[in-house]
Amino acid sequence: MKTYTDYLTITTPTRYEIRDITDEVAAIVKASGVRDGLVLVSAMHITASIFVNDRESGLWNDIMRWLEDLAPAKPEYEHHRTGEDNADAHLKRMLLGHQVTMPITNGKLDVGPWERVHYGEFDGRRPKRIVIKVMGV
Amino acid sequence: MKTYTDYLTITTPTRYEIRDITDEVAAIVKASGVRDGLVLVSAMHITASIFVNDRESGLWNDIMRWLEDLAPAKPEYEHHRTGEDNADAHLKRMLLGHQVTMPITNGKLDVGPWERVHYGEFDGRRPKRIVIKVMGV
Amino acid sequence: MKTYTDYLTITTPTRYEIRDITDEVAAIVKASGVRDGLVLVSAMHITASIFVNDRESGLWNDIMRWLEDLAPAKPEYEHHRTGEDNADAHLKRMLLGHQVTMPITNGKLDVGPWERVHYGEFDGRRPKRIVIKVMGV
Repeated sequence: MKTYTDYLTITTPTRYEIRDITDEVAAIVKASGVRDGLVLVSAMHITASIFVNDRESGLWNDIMRWLEDLAPAKPEYEHHRTGEDNADAHLKRMLLGHQVTMPITNGKLDVGPWERVHYGEFDGRRPKRIVIKVMGV
Repeated sequence: MKTYTDYLTITTPTRYEIRDITDEVAAIVKASGVRDGLVLVSAMHITASIFVNDRESGLWNDIMRWLEDLAPAKPEYEHHRTGEDNADAHLKRMLLGHQVTMPITNGKLDVGPWERVHYGEFDGRRPKRIVIKVMGV
Repeated sequence: MKTYTDYLTITTPTRYEIRDITDEVAAIVKASGVRDGLVLVSAMHITASIFVNDRESGLWNDIMRWLEDLAPAKPEYEHHRTGEDNADAHLKRMLLGHQVTMPITNGKLDVGPWERVHYGEFDGRRPKRIVIKVMGV
């Protein structure tokens, strides 16, 4: 059995952003040499998400508006007594989830026609890491 | 180490439906011959969910109503400018999640007394695939 | 390849509680002898969550208030016709998710500076189990 680990670092220019990272994940899977197995893609910062959905900019805008409806940025969070101002980012990241595990079959991501792996940033403008761990044969 | 991959295809008669797929997943685990390991169950379409909860039809109705409250079907999504009408399905699927990883111990799903693996469909009436990847010894 | 399985049992004194279980998970990873791989941490009861977020009591209170806003405890759930009174717990647990898979690198949880594994209880005051399955080399 093989394991292979790599990291992506993303610094978004704005506070909120969605980015497709499927090609980066696929390149790491290829580098691992694993033909059959699993790859975990997990945000190492607690104000960011990893999720699978459609690469469509209108939908990305819908997602951001919807997250703001359900987990709005506002001053009144108890977390802000620590000096932070990003409690909404902690909640938004949980709505979308912070990690995915993708199957690898015949050396490639075994995905449906529209599945793309996305990074969701809710407190950006600084470097954030994603861990990618491949395991298989 | 062994790996084993199979797929389920589900075509629901209605647009929205919840279905218990635990028996199908358990049969694939048995066919794999894996005695100890993990099984990933992941929806390959981006308008469907995989989640673990109670097999109870009243709760299923509660879940569907609750998803409609939090991510309603309505015309005003930006995604619909592409000609699609299913933006709510993309959001609903993220609330429940699109995949689970179940432990396998002594050749069986290692689950609690009420844990059942469910498929949640939010844009049905056409064939949708689920990938099931078993890995272990 | 090695696999290693253990269980935690948690009985909270109150109905709703968030608890940091990172140290317990790390101890099981150490006991497994796995140096590189994955560890699945999964709630075996369908009214509890496992999630990764900040160990900060103000944020924990924000999370509990937010869950109550989005999935309130109230009598009117159809699930309650079975005699249960915990439909809100089934919904809350899905908002946060019921499992995480953590990477293991160099014999340790490969986590970011603020990542902590949490247990979220929404129907406590009785023993609940968590399965922890380690797999790797």
